[in-house]
Amino acid sequence: MNRVQLEKKVLNENDRIAACLRQYFAEKGTVCLNLISSPGSGKTTLLERTLGSFSPHRRIAVLTGDIQTQNDALRLQRFGFPVKQITTGGTCHLTASMVESHLADWRLEAIELLFIENVGNLVCPASYDLGEAAKIVLLSVTEGEDKPLKYPSIFFKAELAVLTKTDLLPYVPFNVRAAEENLRRVHPGIDILKLSSSSGQGIEDWLGWLEKRIAHAETLCGA
Amino acid sequence: MNRVQLEKKVLNENDRIAACLRQYFAEKGTVCLNLISSPGSGKTTLLERTLGSFSPHRRIAVLTGDIQTQNDALRLQRFGFPVKQITTGGTCHLTASMVESHLADWRLEAIELLFIENVGNLVCPASYDLGEAAKIVLLSVTEGEDKPLKYPSIFFKAELAVLTKTDLLPYVPFNVRAAEENLRRVHPGIDILKLSSSSGQGIEDWLGWLEKRIAHAETLCGA
Repeated sequence: MNRVQLEKKVLNENDRIAACLRQYFAEKGTVCLNLISSPGSGKTTLLERTLGSFSPHRRIAVLTGDIQTQNDALRLQRFGFPVKQITTGGTCHLTASMVESHLADWRLEAIELLFIENVGNLVCPASYDLGEAAKIVLLSVTEGEDKPLKYPSIFFKAELAVLTKTDLLPYVPFNVRAAEENLRRVHPGIDILKLSSSSGQGIEDWLGWLEKRIAHAETLCGA
Repeated sequence: MNRVQLEKKVLNENDRIAACLRQYFAEKGTVCLNLISSPGSGKTTLLERTLGSFSPHRRIAVLTGDIQTQNDALRLQRFGFPVKQITTGGTCHLTASMVESHLADWRLEAIELLFIENVGNLVCPASYDLGEAAKIVLLSVTEGEDKPLKYPSIFFKAELAVLTKTDLLPYVPFNVRAAEENLRRVHPGIDILKLSSSSGQGIEDWLGWLEKRIAHAETLCGA
């Protein structure tokens, strides 16, 4: 078996587990969102802002992936929602099997919204389906507006692109319109939001998008 | 052959070509530096600043890697030095074989300093030796000071860490001292530089580091 065949086999096995997870999420009424970005684009900070905005009665949970450290889980646990760290130990992306094993002792019927924060990497996580309802890609305005063209796969597969750290726009040479054009060139139907987790600008739109996504899933399950 | 064995075989084959390249660079007196970072940490902008600072008589060249687009080569070619784009078409890192094939029509004896700008990815490029004299890792101050702990492999393997975009320090919650401590925890002997390619702050130190690295290699070859 050569490398390409083996990679195909690994991806096929991942897809099998992801399909099983997707069905399981649908049966339990859990909307699963897979957050993907470069390291340091603000996934954890956006989740902190998000968890801090939800009423403690909401049924939210987070799986957060990193190669090393429990830092992100420690940051997110203080909001009182269930949070678990997946430490990959070197692997550059999460797999469906890692998600499955970390869900084993959670009751999914008690979770309406499950965030998966992937390993910081704009390339490899795009190839691994985790059974999510949607992939969300974050792009910080410090990174440059040509990233959708350079890393098209994840921008093509994501349902939503979030431009983060908009509070830094006055200090960086980032052209928002060019970024939006590049996003639509790669993926004409992609949703786009702009926000700053530190100033709070745009957070209401993000929370609105999440609520719509939850309502949409409930309609699907009820249909 | 299972996946781990196959990956080992691929890496062994990469190491064989990299060793051959390393010997070739040494014979020709070419210092090769492999720049690695997340997407958008400022590799290309630092190279623009660097090429713009060198006298046109210096013998500098650049290989720049991306998954898609020729954007970076177009940005760098305007300084008059030889620049070639390596487009990986999906692969998340450069390999020694890609470097070898793109060097084929260059006379290395006419190049004293060869920059390789790797694909934007803080994980996978760390595993692929390109025959370089040194790996250099860039970390933007917008990314957070815990990155060395979360992505230890590349920070352990790099000879130099460059903290970029220091002009943004007044606007981001980045603790420089904590970043330096984290870098030294992962790699006690690592060199650390701080700079801003847009303001020019720290660029002299960077150019000084490069000159020392070239002189060091000349001593080695002459010894």
